Amino acid sequence: SVNPDLASERLTGSFCVPRLTAVLDGGAERTRLRRAVVDVIESDPVFSRENQYFQDQNERYEAAVRKAVHVRKKMQELGWSKDGPESVYVYRALSGDVAFLLHRVFMRSISMLGSDKQVAKWIPLATEYQLIGSYGQTELGHGTYLQGLETTAVFDINTQEFILNTPTISAMKWWPGDMGRSATHTVVFAQLYIHGKCYGVHPFIVQIRSLQDHSLCPGVTAGDIGPKMNFEHIDNGYLMLKNVRIPRENMLNKFCEVQPDGTYVRHGSQQINYFTMTSVRISLISDEVILPLMKACTIAIRYSVVRRQSKLKPGEEEAKILDYQTQQEKLLPQLAAAYAFHFINNYLHELFDKSYKEIQGRNFDSLPELHALSAGFKAMVTQYCTSGVEICLRACGGHGYSLLSGLPSLYTKILASCIYEGENTILLLQTARFLIKCFTAASAGQPVPPSVTYLAAIKPRKCPAKDKLDFLSPDMYTDAYQHAAIRLISSTAAKLQDLIQSGAESHEAWNQCTVQLVQAAKAHCHYITVKNFVETVEKLESTAGIQNIMKHLRDLFALHGIFSNAGIFLHDGYITGAQMDMVTASYLDLLAIVRKDAVPLVDAFDFTDKSLNSALGAYDGQVYQRLYEWARKAPTNKQISPAYEKYLKPLLHNKLSKL
Amino acid sequence: SVNPDLASERLTGSFCVPRLTAVLDGGAERTRLRRAVVDVIESDPVFSRENQYFQDQNERYEAAVRKAVHVRKKMQELGWSKDGPESVYVYRALSGDVAFLLHRVFMRSISMLGSDKQVAKWIPLATEYQLIGSYGQTELGHGTYLQGLETTAVFDINTQEFILNTPTISAMKWWPGDMGRSATHTVVFAQLYIHGKCYGVHPFIVQIRSLQDHSLCPGVTAGDIGPKMNFEHIDNGYLMLKNVRIPRENMLNKFCEVQPDGTYVRHGSQQINYFTMTSVRISLISDEVILPLMKACTIAIRYSVVRRQSKLKPGEEEAKILDYQTQQEKLLPQLAAAYAFHFINNYLHELFDKSYKEIQGRNFDSLPELHALSAGFKAMVTQYCTSGVEICLRACGGHGYSLLSGLPSLYTKILASCIYEGENTILLLQTARFLIKCFTAASAGQPVPPSVTYLAAIKPRKCPAKDKLDFLSPDMYTDAYQHAAIRLISSTAAKLQDLIQSGAESHEAWNQCTVQLVQAAKAHCHYITVKNFVETVEKLESTAGIQNIMKHLRDLFALHGIFSNAGIFLHDGYITGAQMDMVTASYLDLLAIVRKDAVPLVDAFDFTDKSLNSALGAYDGQVYQRLYEWARKAPTNKQISPAYEKYLKPLLHNKLSKL
Repeated sequence: SVNPDLASERLTGSFCVPRLTAVLDGGAERTRLRRAVVDVIESDPVFSRENQYFQDQNERYEAAVRKAVHVRKKMQELGWSKDGPESVYVYRALSGDVAFLLHRVFMRSISMLGSDKQVAKWIPLATEYQLIGSYGQTELGHGTYLQGLETTAVFDINTQEFILNTPTISAMKWWPGDMGRSATHTVVFAQLYIHGKCYGVHPFIVQIRSLQDHSLCPGVTAGDIGPKMNFEHIDNGYLMLKNVRIPRENMLNKFCEVQPDGTYVRHGSQQINYFTMTSVRISLISDEVILPLMKACTIAIRYSVVRRQSKLKPGEEEAKILDYQTQQEKLLPQLAAAYAFHFINNYLHELFDKSYKEIQGRNFDSLPELHALSAGFKAMVTQYCTSGVEICLRACGGHGYSLLSGLPSLYTKILASCIYEGENTILLLQTARFLIKCFTAASAGQPVPPSVTYLAAIKPRKCPAKDKLDFLSPDMYTDAYQHAAIRLISSTAAKLQDLIQSGAESHEAWNQCTVQLVQAAKAHCHYITVKNFVETVEKLESTAGIQNIMKHLRDLFALHGIFSNAGIFLHDGYITGAQMDMVTASYLDLLAIVRKDAVPLVDAFDFTDKSLNSALGAYDGQVYQRLYEWARKAPTNKQISPAYEKYLKPLLHNKLSKL
Repeated sequence: SVNPDLASERLTGSFCVPRLTAVLDGGAERTRLRRAVVDVIESDPVFSRENQYFQDQNERYEAAVRKAVHVRKKMQELGWSKDGPESVYVYRALSGDVAFLLHRVFMRSISMLGSDKQVAKWIPLATEYQLIGSYGQTELGHGTYLQGLETTAVFDINTQEFILNTPTISAMKWWPGDMGRSATHTVVFAQLYIHGKCYGVHPFIVQIRSLQDHSLCPGVTAGDIGPKMNFEHIDNGYLMLKNVRIPRENMLNKFCEVQPDGTYVRHGSQQINYFTMTSVRISLISDEVILPLMKACTIAIRYSVVRRQSKLKPGEEEAKILDYQTQQEKLLPQLAAAYAFHFINNYLHELFDKSYKEIQGRNFDSLPELHALSAGFKAMVTQYCTSGVEICLRACGGHGYSLLSGLPSLYTKILASCIYEGENTILLLQTARFLIKCFTAASAGQPVPPSVTYLAAIKPRKCPAKDKLDFLSPDMYTDAYQHAAIRLISSTAAKLQDLIQSGAESHEAWNQCTVQLVQAAKAHCHYITVKNFVETVEKLESTAGIQNIMKHLRDLFALHGIFSNAGIFLHDGYITGAQMDMVTASYLDLLAIVRKDAVPLVDAFDFTDKSLNSALGAYDGQVYQRLYEWARKAPTNKQISPAYEKYLKPLLHNKLSKL
């Protein structure tokens, strides 16, 4: 039975939940497909995550390998291809709790960087799990800065082999998933040397474990890098190579090749490597970043209408904590952000698809914009969502801190997204470099990519709002965001120029501006997100009963951003203090409005209880019952600790059973 | 041998490290004592934390119990009393990784709330570990709001007993440390009923496990609440009571008593309960909050001069990451904050000691101020330091995410401090209530406590700074903080009054102002922290060679606060946009200055390698070597997973050992 406090929230919703779910899925047909896949996965006990919070690293790893092998079998049985529409939902339903994700990156890199012959040899073996691959890029001493990788691959013309070596401890491969215990092969990125000359970093296929007994190959040292904040189920590994020889054919050679005589030949453009990274960055935003925030919001908001604490009004019963303004101010902006980022993710995917078509026609013009946006949004969305999940966790008090709430594992996992696939600060600086370039071009009247044409726009210098209601107009706040972005970009460009004109070297000037460049890049991404939310809501016009609540969420997202970054808008007086008070008033009003629909808004995300795996967030709201039931299953309650016999019994006053 | 990049940082320091350490310790004599205690603890293998990152909940619990029993024996042998000067350093050296901390709260509550007779009976037994106590306050359904507790204690006049019951599932005690597996006794907070009348929440001593065989007593259900984000070594527990009878003498009755005939008598003031909470809050700030931030800074800053990545200048060798402005901007403000909070902690302790003396003389006048400050600072410091530790973690990239860095466990532990001993938002609202009251009084010309006399001050309406150097004057920024605090407090007071005058009920008006009240309370605490830092540095005048660097840190802390909360200062034009640019310029300049002394500044915290327990943060900076050595010891490298035989072997292409 559903907790009555939660049930009552569902009676008063101002809109139709299934209709919103369909909008989020991209159509009711997709919703049906997704649910069918979820049913298949969740009804199979092999995929159960029930005991996940009680398992150690060894148990999690074993379960993840089992799932990976089983899911392949299952998909084959059901006739679901690994590139079919069900595939995305399969991995989403597993909540990432499965092995061999890097095996898939291994395959992707061979498909993209390998010759037809290499693809024909390796992909069928990998598809059938006749080998397990990993992807050895990051080293102990080098992450995002790939040019600094130290592993070497020296071409031996006599034997027609590459000799791979790990020359220093910092050159050890470190972090690659599936490498610590599973992989038999890996793509290794290494500095290519021919006749003593370095040709830069290239990818090579290297076998590291025997296919017969899984023992390490000669010259190979490999293992698990030990415990991390999350990803216990993944065997992130280390790898050292000592004079490991691989045939010439094992260098991935679609774009560059070493010929038998040692001649180095490059085919096609180097830029395509850009595109692989870009594609990975965009593909992770939805499942690894936005979905966790949606889950965290679902858990925290459902809990916040079941939890009653203290009194709003003396003499009344204790209040639902979501009725406190401070709790609304914690959670509802995160909910609005989850929607905002869902829509910006759609925008990025459209941009990517368009770019991809152009690239197939050998037109690389859109690459810089796509790269700058994907880098900036990856950084902005991961940072925002990570902080959002943490806010949700804290907003559930002590119970949020229990692993059984599901929130700690969401947090420790999403946190990694700020680091992997490019460290966020470095990514934002790449976006900033693009913005400064475009600003300079736009100022000189030259054409710039579509997303930055606004940099050339001349806008009123003051916000015209006269009343708090004026700030519920999308033009009003979109203009404010645009103005702030232009101001931050132009003022940093000016500082940069000043420094150079007063004699600073350009790299030093750049370094002295980086704190402000990061701010500028964030402001740009924030502006585009608000603008895209506005445009998305306009297109929803025909979806009756949805648009109204979406307008509130859109306004809430926008005004929360102004309220919490007030300095950016007040700085040059574009918004005055009096206007900022209007923003605050409208923002606080919106909290009370959105609060009424908070539960239907998270119900619309349509997560099953199994996918939330949370004692606090289940659909029925029986939080205390579930916490207790789950706690009783903990291993700490199954085993009598030897600590009593060993250390306590000798001390305790055991002459009487009772004092 | 020390990594040369780290060694070179120690040659250029502008001040004497041991002198600063002595200042932090409160004198060179204290430093010697602390180090002697640390030596004793760290040279004893029982206290080793070497394998901590590899242990599961059961192993951690057993080790923690062992340590608790061993440390008592050790202290007895050395003649160190549990209230002596060594005691604080003993627990600090254990880094909290020890059982029976709630046993100590059990003892503290009996000492403070029990009669002389109760103290005489229970304290010696507890001191000798002839019983293990816990402290059962929090319930599944109630945390900070104690009045809502549901556990009942009904007085039975016939048998002269209290009958304790857990009437609902939400009334179950939940979270008390040492309760899940260890405790034989616990203080239980329950609603007292006599002849059907409720007298509110009172503390009772209840036995829950047999002293002979440790089995649960009749009517008692208890166990461990399962896995949490941290505190694996603590058996946080649940407890249900069904008609558990305890003698009348087991109600802690220093301040109130039930007489044999059922008469309820109250002795002395209720306010003293306040004081217990206040004392716990103040006592946790140093060890549980500020020290973890100091450790995180030590780890992240040492790592950031060893880690080299990418190039600042083309053609040069890769740069230390601490030489990037963005990395400085992440870490150095956290370092400054650690010093600021160390000094505000001293201030709070002085205030507390003064208050305590007055209370012993039956003067309770300082209680409201002490309560308001301890609540506000607990909230502000825990929030700031938690976020600071997270910044340090992220600033170490992927390696920060490994448990072996020491940073994840610092983070997951400090995060709890935002929740326990009063949820932060509620605490800030208590501070805000005090501030609004004092503001109203001060406006009416009435006297107010010392820390808030500034609320009556009339100050210039505009910041007079004309140049970026003006912002290196303490008066300049202290006035700005003061002005901002007054503005936020007075404007929220005005909003509150407006709402009430336009007909809102006072509780509803209060709720509608809470987001702003929280801001106001934070601004007040921030102001006091800056002011106290200024005053502390002035007193350091005689400590040659320290004051200069302390001035830089003080300025950095203050300007970072203005830079990152710009909206608060710009709002009414007290600081103009042009002046904010000066703040930014001075702030960025300070980063470059403090960066030079960053390593000596963390060396001065004087943490041993064992206490940091970090592969990244050790004194010698051999980060890659240590990461590798520690990883090899991981249990995932000691056991061949059954996953290979079970799931992989049947699939792998094992006709050839090599493809």
